[in-house]
Amino acid sequence: MKTSKYKVAIVGASGFTGSELTRLLAGHPDIEIAHITSESHAGKAFSELHPQFFQIVDLPLEKATVIDDAELDVIFLALPHGVSMDFVKRWKNKNAKIIDLSGDFRLSSPKIYESWYGKDHTFEEGFGSAVYGLPELKAEEVKESNLIANPGCYPTASILSVAPLFAADLIEEGSLIIDAKSGLTGAGIKASATTHFSNVNDNFKAYGVGVHRHTVEIEEQLSNLSGGKVRVQFTPHLIPADRGILVTAYAKPRQEMDSHKLVEIYQDFYRDKPFVRVRKNVPSIKDVRGSHYCDVFPFWDKRTERIISIAVIDNLLKGAASEAVHNMNLMLGLNEQSGLNQIPLRP
Amino acid sequence: MKTSKYKVAIVGASGFTGSELTRLLAGHPDIEIAHITSESHAGKAFSELHPQFFQIVDLPLEKATVIDDAELDVIFLALPHGVSMDFVKRWKNKNAKIIDLSGDFRLSSPKIYESWYGKDHTFEEGFGSAVYGLPELKAEEVKESNLIANPGCYPTASILSVAPLFAADLIEEGSLIIDAKSGLTGAGIKASATTHFSNVNDNFKAYGVGVHRHTVEIEEQLSNLSGGKVRVQFTPHLIPADRGILVTAYAKPRQEMDSHKLVEIYQDFYRDKPFVRVRKNVPSIKDVRGSHYCDVFPFWDKRTERIISIAVIDNLLKGAASEAVHNMNLMLGLNEQSGLNQIPLRP
Amino acid sequence: MKTSKYKVAIVGASGFTGSELTRLLAGHPDIEIAHITSESHAGKAFSELHPQFFQIVDLPLEKATVIDDAELDVIFLALPHGVSMDFVKRWKNKNAKIIDLSGDFRLSSPKIYESWYGKDHTFEEGFGSAVYGLPELKAEEVKESNLIANPGCYPTASILSVAPLFAADLIEEGSLIIDAKSGLTGAGIKASATTHFSNVNDNFKAYGVGVHRHTVEIEEQLSNLSGGKVRVQFTPHLIPADRGILVTAYAKPRQEMDSHKLVEIYQDFYRDKPFVRVRKNVPSIKDVRGSHYCDVFPFWDKRTERIISIAVIDNLLKGAASEAVHNMNLMLGLNEQSGLNQIPLRP
Amino acid sequence: MKTSKYKVAIVGASGFTGSELTRLLAGHPDIEIAHITSESHAGKAFSELHPQFFQIVDLPLEKATVIDDAELDVIFLALPHGVSMDFVKRWKNKNAKIIDLSGDFRLSSPKIYESWYGKDHTFEEGFGSAVYGLPELKAEEVKESNLIANPGCYPTASILSVAPLFAADLIEEGSLIIDAKSGLTGAGIKASATTHFSNVNDNFKAYGVGVHRHTVEIEEQLSNLSGGKVRVQFTPHLIPADRGILVTAYAKPRQEMDSHKLVEIYQDFYRDKPFVRVRKNVPSIKDVRGSHYCDVFPFWDKRTERIISIAVIDNLLKGAASEAVHNMNLMLGLNEQSGLNQIPLRP
Repeated sequence: MKTSKYKVAIVGASGFTGSELTRLLAGHPDIEIAHITSESHAGKAFSELHPQFFQIVDLPLEKATVIDDAELDVIFLALPHGVSMDFVKRWKNKNAKIIDLSGDFRLSSPKIYESWYGKDHTFEEGFGSAVYGLPELKAEEVKESNLIANPGCYPTASILSVAPLFAADLIEEGSLIIDAKSGLTGAGIKASATTHFSNVNDNFKAYGVGVHRHTVEIEEQLSNLSGGKVRVQFTPHLIPADRGILVTAYAKPRQEMDSHKLVEIYQDFYRDKPFVRVRKNVPSIKDVRGSHYCDVFPFWDKRTERIISIAVIDNLLKGAASEAVHNMNLMLGLNEQSGLNQIPLRP
Repeated sequence: MKTSKYKVAIVGASGFTGSELTRLLAGHPDIEIAHITSESHAGKAFSELHPQFFQIVDLPLEKATVIDDAELDVIFLALPHGVSMDFVKRWKNKNAKIIDLSGDFRLSSPKIYESWYGKDHTFEEGFGSAVYGLPELKAEEVKESNLIANPGCYPTASILSVAPLFAADLIEEGSLIIDAKSGLTGAGIKASATTHFSNVNDNFKAYGVGVHRHTVEIEEQLSNLSGGKVRVQFTPHLIPADRGILVTAYAKPRQEMDSHKLVEIYQDFYRDKPFVRVRKNVPSIKDVRGSHYCDVFPFWDKRTERIISIAVIDNLLKGAASEAVHNMNLMLGLNEQSGLNQIPLRP
Repeated sequence: MKTSKYKVAIVGASGFTGSELTRLLAGHPDIEIAHITSESHAGKAFSELHPQFFQIVDLPLEKATVIDDAELDVIFLALPHGVSMDFVKRWKNKNAKIIDLSGDFRLSSPKIYESWYGKDHTFEEGFGSAVYGLPELKAEEVKESNLIANPGCYPTASILSVAPLFAADLIEEGSLIIDAKSGLTGAGIKASATTHFSNVNDNFKAYGVGVHRHTVEIEEQLSNLSGGKVRVQFTPHLIPADRGILVTAYAKPRQEMDSHKLVEIYQDFYRDKPFVRVRKNVPSIKDVRGSHYCDVFPFWDKRTERIISIAVIDNLLKGAASEAVHNMNLMLGLNEQSGLNQIPLRP
Repeated sequence: MKTSKYKVAIVGASGFTGSELTRLLAGHPDIEIAHITSESHAGKAFSELHPQFFQIVDLPLEKATVIDDAELDVIFLALPHGVSMDFVKRWKNKNAKIIDLSGDFRLSSPKIYESWYGKDHTFEEGFGSAVYGLPELKAEEVKESNLIANPGCYPTASILSVAPLFAADLIEEGSLIIDAKSGLTGAGIKASATTHFSNVNDNFKAYGVGVHRHTVEIEEQLSNLSGGKVRVQFTPHLIPADRGILVTAYAKPRQEMDSHKLVEIYQDFYRDKPFVRVRKNVPSIKDVRGSHYCDVFPFWDKRTERIISIAVIDNLLKGAASEAVHNMNLMLGLNEQSGLNQIPLRP
C-alpha cells in the first residue's frame, strides 16, 4: 500500500449515485477525490447541487474532459446506460482503473445487451475485459481487473438472495420467481411522472412486468453460478420510500430440504463475507439503510415444499455506490471493509 | 322495497372498519344508522373517536347490549376475531341479518378455524348457515343468507386476481404464488411496535411468512371454485401507506395460453360485475383508494409461460366495509351499487 | 330550478384541480358534464390521464375551441395563471357563468396583479366584474355574479382562520403572522425537482419566504373585511403529504380577550356556514381530507396574550375544486351543499 | 489525552436516543462502549432490540445496577424525564462524568421544573452543578463540568436559530414567535395513538399549543444570552417524517436592519462553530439528516420589517445523541469533531 492517498474521479455527479459515491469517498481514509464532473452543471460547486455537502465537499464540478489528462488511480462512471460506454472507450488506455456503475458492461455480449437495452453497443471490446463486480461472488476476478461492471441494484439483492442455492445447483429449473420491491431512488433523480411525489406517496404499483432489463442480468449470473441455464420470473414494484430494495425469492429445491439445512447452506456460503448478514428473522429495508449490508433471511416452507428467501439492501449503496467502493478496495489491495463501516441509519 | 329506511347497527366502532362502515352507511340513501356501539368508549360521541365525523355523525356510542332489544334490519359486527362469534351466537334468533367482518365464520369448519386461529370456536352451528360474502362469486347465496362471513382483505384481492382462472380450472396444481402487499391499516388501529410510524415509514418488510391465516381462506375459496384442491404460497408484506392492497399472483396454466385469450377470460368472467375493472395497464393502489373497486390486470409472460395477475383494492373498503355494504344491498334486495358510488380519491 | 340538468364544461383537465372537479361534478345530482378539455391530451379519454376514473368517466378530452359554440350553464377554468385570462376574455359574451380557478382575477387591480405575478394582464375589464368566491364571506355577491375568481388554497385557509377577528376589527395592526404548511399537490402535477418524491418524502422545508403571491391575496381580503389596511407575514412550507393545508395564525388582539370570548366570536361568525367547523381541539389535515370542510381551532394564549388560530382544509377541494362547486351551487340557485356531502376520508 | 480508549456506559438503550448514541459511540475512535443497559430487556442482545446493529453491536443489555461498580469515564443517561434524576443522584459520587439527555436538569430551578413538568424533583442539588450543554453557547462551561443537561431537541434548533440576535440583544421584547415542526421520532419509541402510522402518515397537526415544556427551556437560555427577560410564543407541529426539526422563527428587531447586516451577524457568531452552517438558501430537514449539523437561514423581510430565521437539525442527533457526544468530546478534552464527521444522508 502506498503512503499517499489514491486519487479518484467521479464522473457524473448530478445523480443519486454520484452523490452517494462522493459521500463515501469523502470519508474514505485512503482516498482523495481529485475531480467531480457534471456536463450540465460544470462551474457550480458540487454542494450547490447537493446541499447536504455544504462546507463539506464544495469542490467545483468540471467537464469530463478534465479527466483526459488527469493522473488518477480510479475513475468512477456514474452515468446513464448508453453514455458510459463512450467514456470507457475514451479512457481505456489511461493508466487508471475504471468502475462503471451503468449497465453497459454487465451482460455477456453486445448482442444480448442490444436485445434488452434496445441500442447498439459502441465498445464491444469492453465485454472481454469487464468483470461483473459482485464481491461476494467475484472478489478474485475483481482484484485482477481494470474494468468493473458494477452490478445493478435489483440483481445485487436478487443474486445474493439465492446465490447459495444456485452455487450448489439445488434449484429446480424454471421454478425461480423473484418478486422485487424498490424505493423510488431506483428511478433516478430525473423529474418525471414516475418520480412525481403524488404518484408515489401512499401508493404502490408494479412496473416493467415481464420485460425489466435486470431479468437477464440475474439469469446470466445465476447461470454462471449453477452451471445450468437459469430462467427467472422477475417482477419489480415501487415502494413509497426513498431507499431500499427487498426481494422475495421463491424456488423449489431439487431434493429434500429442511429449515436447519437451509440456514446452514446460507451461513456456510456467506461465512467470510462481512457485508452479508444471514438473519434469523424477516429483515426490513431500514435495517440496512445508509449501509453496505445485505441482510438475507432464508425460509423453508414445509407445507408447500418451497424455499422463500428474502433479501434487503440499500439500492444506492450495496446496489450501487458502496458496491463500487468495495470493488475499488479490492482492486487497490486495500482492506475490503475500508470506508464502508457505516452502521445502518434507523429509524 | 319498503319506503322507510332500513335500520342498521354497527357493533364495534372504534376501529378503522367501524369508522368506514359508518362513513358509507351515513351516506347510503336507504339506510338509517340506529346504533353504534363500543364497549370501551360508550358514552362518548362517535365523532370524539373519529374527528372527521364532527358535526356529521355525532351519535352516542352505546354498549352492545343495546342491540338485544333493538329492532334492526341489519347488524354489522366490526369486532376482532374470536369476539365476533359470541355476538353472532347471542343475536342468532333476532330477526336481523348479521354481517360479520371478522374471520370467525369464513372457513369451512371449526376444526380448520382452530388450527389456523389457535383458539376454540364457541358457535360451531354458525358454520352451517354462514355464507362467504364475496359478491362477485356468491351473489345468489348472499341474497338468501342471514349470516354473512365478510371476506378478509387479502383474500378478496387474492381471489379476485385469479378467480377467472380457477373457475375454468386452468391452473397447474401447486403453481400458485401470491405475493401480497398491504397498507398499514390492515394491521388495525391498535398501537403497537408494528404500527409505530418509525417502523413503517420509509420502510418495507414481509411478515407472517408461510403462516398467515388468510392462506387457508384463499385456498378454500379457490378450491370451491375450481373443484380441485388448491394450494397457495401466500406471502404478505407491509407497504408504508395507509390503505390499499396489491397482490401479484403467479400461476402456470395447464394448457396453451396467449395474451388475447387471457384477457378474454377475465373480461368474460367479470362482465356483469360493476366493481371489478379489468385493466389494460398495471394498476396502482391509489387508483381504487376510497372506493369499492377492484382493478385487475392479467398478463401473459410468453418467455416464462407464466400468468401474472395483479389486483388492487382498498383494504378498508372492498376488503372490508364496502364489501359489507355490498352484501347488505344484496341481502335487502337493493340495487347492488346503492351507496357505493364513491370515485377513487387520487392523489 | 329547472328540471333537466345544468350543463358544465371543465377546461383544463390534466391537472389535479381538473381531476377533482370532475370527481365532484360527476357525482353532483343536478349537473351534467358536457365537455372536458385538454390541449395537450385532446383525443384521449379522460380516464387515460386519470386512471381512477376508468369505466366511470371515460369522456373524450377535447380542444378548448369546442367551448366556443357549446351551450353551457357553467364553465370551469382549471388553467394556469396567465392562461386563464385569455379564455375569460374569449368567452365573456357567452351566456355562461365562468368560474376561474386561477389567480388571474383574484386581486383588486391589474397593477397589483402585475407586481406580484410578474406579467401583464390581458383582460383588465374582468377585474370590474369578478367576485372573489369565498362563500363564507361573499355568498350574496357570488349569487349575482357571472365571473368568479375562485380563491387560492392558502388564502382560503388563511382567511377563514382569522376572518371572525378581522370582521370585528379586533386585531392589532402588523401583528398577523401566518405560518402555513401545504401538501405537495399544491405544487401541481408538473414534474420538476420540487415535486420529485426524493425531495419531498421524509423532508420538510419552507419556500417563497417573504415573496409568495398569496400574501397579497390574503391582505386584500382581510383589509376588505376589517376596513383597515392589513399586513400579513406569510410563510409557506411543504409537508410530505399529498393533500391538506394547515395554517397557524398568530395575532395580537387590540383589546382584552379570553378563551370563552374568543370561541364565541368564532362560533357566531360561522353559525350558518355549514362547511366551517369550529373545533375544540387541534385539527389535523386528515380530518378534512377529501371533503369541503374547513376546521378551525381558535386558542387564546393567556401567558403571551396572543391569539393562535389553526385552520385545516383539503387544498384540492375547499382550496380549489369543491370551493368552485360551492360557488356554482350559489350561482345556479341550488342548495349550497348539493354534491358536497363527502365525509372526510381518514385514515 | 490517554492512549487507551475512554470507557462509557449508555443507560437506557431501548429508545431512539440510546440507539443513536450507540451508533455514534461504536464508531468513535477514542471510545469503548463498556455497558449498555435496559431494565426491561436485560439479557437480550442490544441488536435484538435494534436489528440494524446485528453483527455490529451485539453487546448484552444489562441492568442499570451494573453501573454501580463499573469503572467508567462517562455515563450517558438516555432515560425518560423524571427517571433520570434518580440515577444522577445515585451515581453523583462516582468518578465519572454524567451526560443526562432528559429534561431533568435543563431548567434553572426545581420550582420551575415542577411547574412545567408537573412533578417533584428528587435531586435539587443537581441544579447547582449541571451545565446546559449547548456547545455553540457553552463550550467553556461544558469542558469544566461533570454533569451535563443535554438540551432538548426543539430548544437546540430554536436557540440556534436566533442566538446571534439575542446575544447582541437586538430583538424587541415579546416579538419572538417560533413555529416549530418535528419528525415523529421526537415522540419517542413508545407505541401510542400519537405514534400510530395512520395518525401521522399523510397528515400534519399542531400539538401542545401554548403549553409545551420546551417553551421555558428556550426562554431561559435566550434570557441568559440577551440579559433581559425573553418571552417566546412556541408552537410545535408534527411532520410525517422520521427525523428532523425545522423551526421558523419570527422576530422584530429593535433597530434598523438589512439583509447584509443580518447575514453578517449570523456568520460572525457562528464563525468557529464547525457544526452550524449559515445557509444562503432555505434549508430542508434532509439536508442535515443523520448528521450533527444545524443549518440556519436568516432572512430580512423588508416589507414587514421582520426577521425570519429558519433552522434545521436532526432531532435525534444535534437535538440529542450527537449533541451528547459533542459534549463528551469537550469534557474529555478530545477534538470537538471527533466521531461526528457523518455527512448528511440525503435522499
